[in-house]
Amino acid sequence: MSALHPDANLFPHATGAAAEMVKQHSKEEPVKLYAGWFCPFTQRVLLLLLEKRIPFQYIEVNPYQKPLSLLKLNPRGLIPTLSYEGKALYESTIICEFLEDAYPSHYPRLLTREPFERARLKIWTDHITSRVVPAFDRFLQYQSISLKDPRFLTIRNRFLTSLYEFTQEMHPIGPYFTGKEPCIVDYVLAPWALRIWIFDYFKGGLHLEELGELRGRWEKWVEAIEERKSIQMTLSATEYYLPIYERYADDAPQVEIEKSTGEKGGVF
Amino acid sequence: MSALHPDANLFPHATGAAAEMVKQHSKEEPVKLYAGWFCPFTQRVLLLLLEKRIPFQYIEVNPYQKPLSLLKLNPRGLIPTLSYEGKALYESTIICEFLEDAYPSHYPRLLTREPFERARLKIWTDHITSRVVPAFDRFLQYQSISLKDPRFLTIRNRFLTSLYEFTQEMHPIGPYFTGKEPCIVDYVLAPWALRIWIFDYFKGGLHLEELGELRGRWEKWVEAIEERKSIQMTLSATEYYLPIYERYADDAPQVEIEKSTGEKGGVF
Repeated sequence: MSALHPDANLFPHATGAAAEMVKQHSKEEPVKLYAGWFCPFTQRVLLLLLEKRIPFQYIEVNPYQKPLSLLKLNPRGLIPTLSYEGKALYESTIICEFLEDAYPSHYPRLLTREPFERARLKIWTDHITSRVVPAFDRFLQYQSISLKDPRFLTIRNRFLTSLYEFTQEMHPIGPYFTGKEPCIVDYVLAPWALRIWIFDYFKGGLHLEELGELRGRWEKWVEAIEERKSIQMTLSATEYYLPIYERYADDAPQVEIEKSTGEKGGVF
Repeated sequence: MSALHPDANLFPHATGAAAEMVKQHSKEEPVKLYAGWFCPFTQRVLLLLLEKRIPFQYIEVNPYQKPLSLLKLNPRGLIPTLSYEGKALYESTIICEFLEDAYPSHYPRLLTREPFERARLKIWTDHITSRVVPAFDRFLQYQSISLKDPRFLTIRNRFLTSLYEFTQEMHPIGPYFTGKEPCIVDYVLAPWALRIWIFDYFKGGLHLEELGELRGRWEKWVEAIEERKSIQMTLSATEYYLPIYERYADDAPQVEIEKSTGEKGGVF
C-alpha cells in the first residue's frame, strides 16, 4: 500500500453535463457551495439550489486536499458545506431544509409547511439517510458476491428492503414520492438511485425483481427522476464515477474511508 | 442463555417522580405518546410536551411485548411514537420539531424561526444523535475497563470528544446552549447527560477532567438542566435504571439489542 491516500488521485473536476453547470456557477456569489463532483451528499444540495433557482457559486473541493477557505469556515472541512453570509452550514439534509426556510419566495416549495405532512417527509428523509444509504454502502463494500454466502444475500436484501419500504410509502400513482410534483424526499434519495447501476458492475446486479409487486412503482419513480433537468445537469460522465466506486467495491481501507468522507463515514 | 429476551423482564412502569407525572397524564387525550419510562428517546419528547404544556396521554409500552394499538399505528412498533389525529409520527427529534410546528401558540418556543440559527440548532441536534449517543453506547458496551487497553481509552475519549465539541459550541455564559433560556438542543441531549453517572458504576468513571478548560462550562450546563422541573418530573428512581444498563455494560447479546430498541439500534 502506498503512503498516499487511495483517493488522493481522485479525478479533479466535474465532466459531462455537470461540467457545464459548474461553469455557469463559477462566478462569485454571496452563497457558496463547497462541493465534490462525485459526492451524492453534495448532489442533494445542488438539486435544491438548481430547482429553486437560488444563485450560488460552485467551489470544487478535493476532500484529500481541502482548501484553507473551507477549513476556516468549517474546521471539519466537510463537503457539502454551504457558506451563507460568511457563516457555514453543513449536513446535506439540514442545508436542504435551510434553503426552503431561507428562500420562502423561491418556487417550487419542496417541503410543505403543514406540520404533520412536514414531519412525515422528514421521517422518510431520515429513512433514506439512516437506512437506505448505509445499506447501499454495506452492499457495495461487502467482499463477496457468492450466492452461496448467506451474509451476502442478507446484505443485498437489506438494501432492497430499504427501497421496498420507501416505495411502499410512495403516492400510489406518482410519479414522485408525494404525487405529480417532486419534493425534498425525491431529491434526497435521487443521488443514490442514480448510482444503482454500480451494483451491476461490481455486485452481480441488484435483483429488483425482489421488490415484487412494487417493482413497477419503483421503476416509474426512477424514470421520472432521471428525466428531470436538474438531475441531468448534476451528473458527470459515467466513466469517471467507475474508478471511485471500484475502489470501495474492491476493499479500500475502511478506516481511511471513515476519516475522509463528508457525512457520517459514508461512501461517496 | 434462556429463550426469553434478556429484557423481557424489564421493570414495567415509571417510579419516583416520573410515576406521578405518568399518573397526571393517564386520561384519554387526542395526542398519545407511546413511551418507555427508561427510554432516553422517549424522554426527549416528554420534555417538549411538558415544557410546552401540550395535553397528552402517556401510554407505557414494554418494547418486548408491544401492544396491538401501537403496532396498528406504527408497524415498526418504535418508541417513542406520537399518535396525532390518529396518525403516527416517530423518530424523537422529528417529533420534537413537529411539536414546535404544530403548536405555534404554545410557549416557550424552543426552535427559532430564523432560518440560519434554526439550521445551526439542527446541526447540533444531529451532532447529539449521530455522535454523542453512538459514542455513549459504544463506551457503555465496550467489554474492558483496563487503562492498558488502548482501544478502551480511544472509545472513552471519543465520547468525551463529542461532549467537548458540543460544549465548545455553547453560549459562553449560558447556562443553556444558546444562553439564558433552554432550546430544543438542550432537551435533545439532556436524557444522556442525566445518565452519565452509569459510567461511574460500570466503566471506572468518565474522567471529565479531560474536558480541560471546558469542564466548568459543561458542569454549569448539566447543573442548569438538572434543576429544571420538567427534567425532575421525567426521571424514575435511580435503582430502576441500574439493572437495565448493567445488562448492556455486561455484554448483552448485541443482535438482540439491535432488534429491540427504539431508534437506530441504540441503547436505552
